Amino acid sequence: MSQFFTEASSEQAVNARMGVEVDARLKTVMASLVKHLHAFIKDVHLTQDEWESAIEFLTRTGQICGNERQEFILLSDTLGVSMLVDAINHRRPDGATENTVLGPFHVAESPQREMGACITLDGKGESCMFEGRVLDLQGNPVAGARLDVWSDNPEGFYDVQQPGVQPKWNNRGIFTTGADGAYRFVGIKPVSYPIPDDGPVGKMLAALGRHPYRPAHMHFIVTAPGFEKIVTHTFVGDDAYLKSDAVFGVKETLVAPFERVNDGSTRWRSTFDFVLTPE
Amino acid sequence: MSQFFTEASSEQAVNARMGVEVDARLKTVMASLVKHLHAFIKDVHLTQDEWESAIEFLTRTGQICGNERQEFILLSDTLGVSMLVDAINHRRPDGATENTVLGPFHVAESPQREMGACITLDGKGESCMFEGRVLDLQGNPVAGARLDVWSDNPEGFYDVQQPGVQPKWNNRGIFTTGADGAYRFVGIKPVSYPIPDDGPVGKMLAALGRHPYRPAHMHFIVTAPGFEKIVTHTFVGDDAYLKSDAVFGVKETLVAPFERVNDGSTRWRSTFDFVLTPE
Repeated sequence: MSQFFTEASSEQAVNARMGVEVDARLKTVMASLVKHLHAFIKDVHLTQDEWESAIEFLTRTGQICGNERQEFILLSDTLGVSMLVDAINHRRPDGATENTVLGPFHVAESPQREMGACITLDGKGESCMFEGRVLDLQGNPVAGARLDVWSDNPEGFYDVQQPGVQPKWNNRGIFTTGADGAYRFVGIKPVSYPIPDDGPVGKMLAALGRHPYRPAHMHFIVTAPGFEKIVTHTFVGDDAYLKSDAVFGVKETLVAPFERVNDGSTRWRSTFDFVLTPE
Repeated sequence: MSQFFTEASSEQAVNARMGVEVDARLKTVMASLVKHLHAFIKDVHLTQDEWESAIEFLTRTGQICGNERQEFILLSDTLGVSMLVDAINHRRPDGATENTVLGPFHVAESPQREMGACITLDGKGESCMFEGRVLDLQGNPVAGARLDVWSDNPEGFYDVQQPGVQPKWNNRGIFTTGADGAYRFVGIKPVSYPIPDDGPVGKMLAALGRHPYRPAHMHFIVTAPGFEKIVTHTFVGDDAYLKSDAVFGVKETLVAPFERVNDGSTRWRSTFDFVLTPE
């Protein structure tokens, strides 16, 4: 083999350049990246114009990023990369609650609420009782489990997207289970909404004939001492976008019942048990 | 197979989402990109922390780009992607002059010079006569061939990198062959220099135990009616970085002789024939 770069030896030429003292894990990751990146280019016979378009796309994607916008995470989400990384790193036994994407709208330290409290501070939307239990794999209740929950409002916006329009902490709260492992709070039946689609990723989705919508979901982070953290959503089963989530976040086991009820002002009930995996 | 995203079906889940009306070539390229990207993540079992580092790296790479800096091209160059795309799109018959990277320092419309003229306007550096012929594949001289040439100065900077320090058009010029296909001009023996390494790509190279240097080279773009454009360099054979060009630009056939001479003020001579491929 030539010591210089050739089309045939491209992967080897690049990877042979890594130093001997390099961190072993970095070496593994970069060697695999180069291998797959070169294989992609060879498989599709990438043209010079396509390469230029890719450089421009990546540059614009970086340049639209700011405090309120992370377009590379959107890119990762819409190419299924975020969900794949999550899946690989959170393989759980049957029966355990699965993870899905965190999303960009989580806020640390949202208010602690009494069990049964309402998190919808502006009274807007179709009121929904969320209830269920936090269990271990054997079906025993987990006491002292912390549920950090949040959802959008009936217009599809999170409070942090509309400061001054929605009250702070609207549709957010933290609940802690007692000895019975049960949780119960009032929020709204969430609604579907588009991910930000006015940037390069939105243009990519349009070119691929894909819509930017996420099906309606309630966010949960469930933690308890001695158990793996669950970062997940429950999904509204009759949502029009359930089978075409723009970020591939839906898992069959996360589709929750949302039943009509007539209990005072509460119009819906969604029951879902979280099953924790030991650490 | 589940209709939802799973680790096992990740590639299919993402690619099945593309619309039916989508441009066929875009579909091919994106489907292959998703396939290889997911295979990379699965092969190395990418961790959440590594994914976050990748997002941050790409974001910083986009954000350092500006009028004078294209860090994504540097990234492409240093991962061998630029040379691979060039190689795939410019496969040429044996004997034809090979391409290499254009580089970021080409300037359109540099001055036309008389054959034999000197392009080194500041008189600095080790003077070198560049000469040879432009030929077709049968060895016939090509008349009316245009050679657009440029190099760095003895400190390793191109004129455009040092406005106000170097005279405009220093070490640049355009020459046109006559009936004999011959070219001849005086420049300097170029020197090796580092690619910009104060950004994310420089950090990556350091982490990989790689230096940022390019071996000394003279740039040429050779064009003639009826022939494929050649974008290439000739390399100084005794350069310390010849076998470790940071951007993988060196090809065996592009290493040119640089011989010592004592011809007035000229201290070197480099002879190289360019062989054009019909369009």
